[in-house]
Amino acid sequence: MVASHVSIVSGGVYMKKIYWLSSIILAMTIGIACALHPSVKPSPNGIQLPVNYKDWPVIAPSYRSDNNTIRVILGNEIAVRAARSGNVVPWPEGAILAKIVWKEKSHEKWTSALLPGKFVHAEFMIKDSAKYSSTGGWGFARWKGLEQIPYGDDANFVQQCFGCHTPVKENDYVFTRPAEMP
Amino acid sequence: MVASHVSIVSGGVYMKKIYWLSSIILAMTIGIACALHPSVKPSPNGIQLPVNYKDWPVIAPSYRSDNNTIRVILGNEIAVRAARSGNVVPWPEGAILAKIVWKEKSHEKWTSALLPGKFVHAEFMIKDSAKYSSTGGWGFARWKGLEQIPYGDDANFVQQCFGCHTPVKENDYVFTRPAEMP
Repeated sequence: MVASHVSIVSGGVYMKKIYWLSSIILAMTIGIACALHPSVKPSPNGIQLPVNYKDWPVIAPSYRSDNNTIRVILGNEIAVRAARSGNVVPWPEGAILAKIVWKEKSHEKWTSALLPGKFVHAEFMIKDSAKYSSTGGWGFARWKGLEQIPYGDDANFVQQCFGCHTPVKENDYVFTRPAEMP
Repeated sequence: MVASHVSIVSGGVYMKKIYWLSSIILAMTIGIACALHPSVKPSPNGIQLPVNYKDWPVIAPSYRSDNNTIRVILGNEIAVRAARSGNVVPWPEGAILAKIVWKEKSHEKWTSALLPGKFVHAEFMIKDSAKYSSTGGWGFARWKGLEQIPYGDDANFVQQCFGCHTPVKENDYVFTRPAEMP
């Protein structure tokens, strides 16, 4: 009976150790998972980062020699369908354009070829004429850097976006032209 | 009976007219369908144009100041998975890279921004180490222009592709570097 009692006690200590070890492993796992999949904060105007935008099809690449950035403009299904059929003035309701921007860098084996270097930001235009009537029917948002920090101190940042896009008002406020494809 | 006979005859003429009209409409429909979906000839080395490559996700854009072209490199599922996880030296078996090339043109409202102009060609690299062992494990193919004309007079054209890619042998013969993304 004494032996049995000791056994139960030492078994209890063992279970406690297992419990604590499991808790530590669980906490570490959650920590690593959070680091790999950080929750991205919404833009100050309430727009959430669109899911899986990196997998959207291409509408066009572009290169800006004035700020040495290389870009690619992607579109959600509604936007790509509109781009491929040439119906983009205006873009249809529900269209989302995603622009990914990188600093340029030269290819080490072909220096006149410019490639994406440091990731700068991802920007979005979301077409909802009713919701965003004060900014040409477009909701604007930007997330900066690999940390995906939302741009803007408050919701007024969109005036900056809209101001810059006003010169292309006749093109539904969009600089991008869908690239010609077969 | 006479009236009935006349009716049958005129009915026959009517059916003949319908038959010919239907045939003409059918022929026109097929003609239009063929014009919209031309069958693209395979490359002289037997490679077929990959289906839906235009919808593949982006691996990187690039810009070449030496020949004034702007490009985007897309990948099939195997290639994109490898690119996103950084496992591209070597690229895995079954990976396909698609490079779409356009002549540059300046944006009319932002002249330092260069956009895709005329479509030049779509090029492909297909990783199959056994099948393409003589060209670094890659099958090469190119289709020129909106008409998608296969490049090369015969299967030897791949020596030209392979020769140009030899300077990047240490990068599994690929110039493209997957763009940094969050």
